[in-house]
Amino acid sequence: MLPPARSVVLTQVTEWEDGAIRAVNDMLAVEEPLEIRLNGAPLTVTMRTPGNDRELAAGFLLTEGVIESPDEISGLRAADSETVAKSNTVDIEIHSRDFEPSQMQRNFFAASSCGICGKATIESIRRRGLRAPNPQFRARPEVLCALPEAIREVQAVFERTGGLHAAALFDADGTLMVLREDIGRHNAVDKVIGWAMCSGKLPLAKSILMVSGRAGFEIAQKALAAGVPVLASVSAPSSLAVQLAREIDLTLVGFLRGRRFVVYAGESRCVPQE
Amino acid sequence: MLPPARSVVLTQVTEWEDGAIRAVNDMLAVEEPLEIRLNGAPLTVTMRTPGNDRELAAGFLLTEGVIESPDEISGLRAADSETVAKSNTVDIEIHSRDFEPSQMQRNFFAASSCGICGKATIESIRRRGLRAPNPQFRARPEVLCALPEAIREVQAVFERTGGLHAAALFDADGTLMVLREDIGRHNAVDKVIGWAMCSGKLPLAKSILMVSGRAGFEIAQKALAAGVPVLASVSAPSSLAVQLAREIDLTLVGFLRGRRFVVYAGESRCVPQE
Repeated sequence: MLPPARSVVLTQVTEWEDGAIRAVNDMLAVEEPLEIRLNGAPLTVTMRTPGNDRELAAGFLLTEGVIESPDEISGLRAADSETVAKSNTVDIEIHSRDFEPSQMQRNFFAASSCGICGKATIESIRRRGLRAPNPQFRARPEVLCALPEAIREVQAVFERTGGLHAAALFDADGTLMVLREDIGRHNAVDKVIGWAMCSGKLPLAKSILMVSGRAGFEIAQKALAAGVPVLASVSAPSSLAVQLAREIDLTLVGFLRGRRFVVYAGESRCVPQE
Repeated sequence: MLPPARSVVLTQVTEWEDGAIRAVNDMLAVEEPLEIRLNGAPLTVTMRTPGNDRELAAGFLLTEGVIESPDEISGLRAADSETVAKSNTVDIEIHSRDFEPSQMQRNFFAASSCGICGKATIESIRRRGLRAPNPQFRARPEVLCALPEAIREVQAVFERTGGLHAAALFDADGTLMVLREDIGRHNAVDKVIGWAMCSGKLPLAKSILMVSGRAGFEIAQKALAAGVPVLASVSAPSSLAVQLAREIDLTLVGFLRGRRFVVYAGESRCVPQE
């Protein structure tokens, strides 16, 4: 089964493997914001992979309890996201008997632990004032390759539940500063950054932030907010995380496993330059 | 390193392995809501693993751009979440020069694609009116064991990005109805449920919902909203997902790999009863 046209994107990245460096092509999962509008007003924004946007919006309304039956939907329109470049909006019209807009306005804040969801419009997802982190910082490949094992040693007890994400801060020598685990990926990141803040260590201009799962847009944005120059992950970044990292010069390392990793942005901090 | 006291919980579950059934003890990652309050008003709720709550709240304010420096925090209080049973609130006082409460009230909806975040109070996270799904439905162990392979076959192209979550619906015979992938776990679930809704298949009283990642509270709640009787995952459920599933009689299957799985709730639908 072929994926929808806009769901993956090809990009050139730098692979480091046991000292050998080469440029390779890599497929990224596309991450883009979708604004769901209800009866003409912005309802929520979710970071999603484009495709099946109408079904996503309809399913969201049902599983979040906004509607209880498909009969309540009188209109459901999306630009065809597989062919139109910037179609990141779905408009839904509903005619619930007891639909009460004021009921939906009981929320007080445009952000959430996900960094994005809870926000109502696409404009609101991008944090303003992010600056390029420390350009002088260097993370040697040997140091990067040792991070996953350092995390595994500390995680030994916790990981037996099989249900936790980890985030950890390391210094340039690969010494573990702090590790936190949480069922929420973003919470684990907020906990280590909150620890650094409460310990007087901000900005984290000489630190590596390592996360156990994927690196999406929100994780990259959180790293930048704390001044972190290198974000590393054992898994893949999203397209929007790569785009943000390249734009602001955050070093983004993925698939950090054994004696291999892939650099998606900010190569100069961790791969010897010609 | 020992995990904080409230971060894991022991529970008795049912293990099925190649036809043999036994009761075993299992450690679950604890998931509980944390309400972050700012200058006396509810700001957001995040589903987190208890522990380091003050750091989580402080980190959240920074990485979400509410504050730019720890100096802006004048008070940070949490009941000690490692000793007090129900201490799921952190109160933060800030004195930003340009703190403007109305700026934070631009959001219009109490829900989000995460099912929980974006909501401001703990009371708002629980969807009302959830009903026990079809008690007559049965999912045979042999059918369950075949699901991961059925997903892998369809995912073949997509999974090369390494960055996607999958959700799929199967009928009682294990026939794949629909599979959707997304960088967001909750989006993948909303897409398959939205597909079912738009195809006139609700409630999903004779379906199995399989997810590629962990099964948290919000995923369980979304399954129940669509009437799904069996939720299966290759990974672990959270404590709150198990609690909800037991309360409403949703069958919750985890660690579905090879010829083994663990049943956390609703055993009668998938394990032969004495």
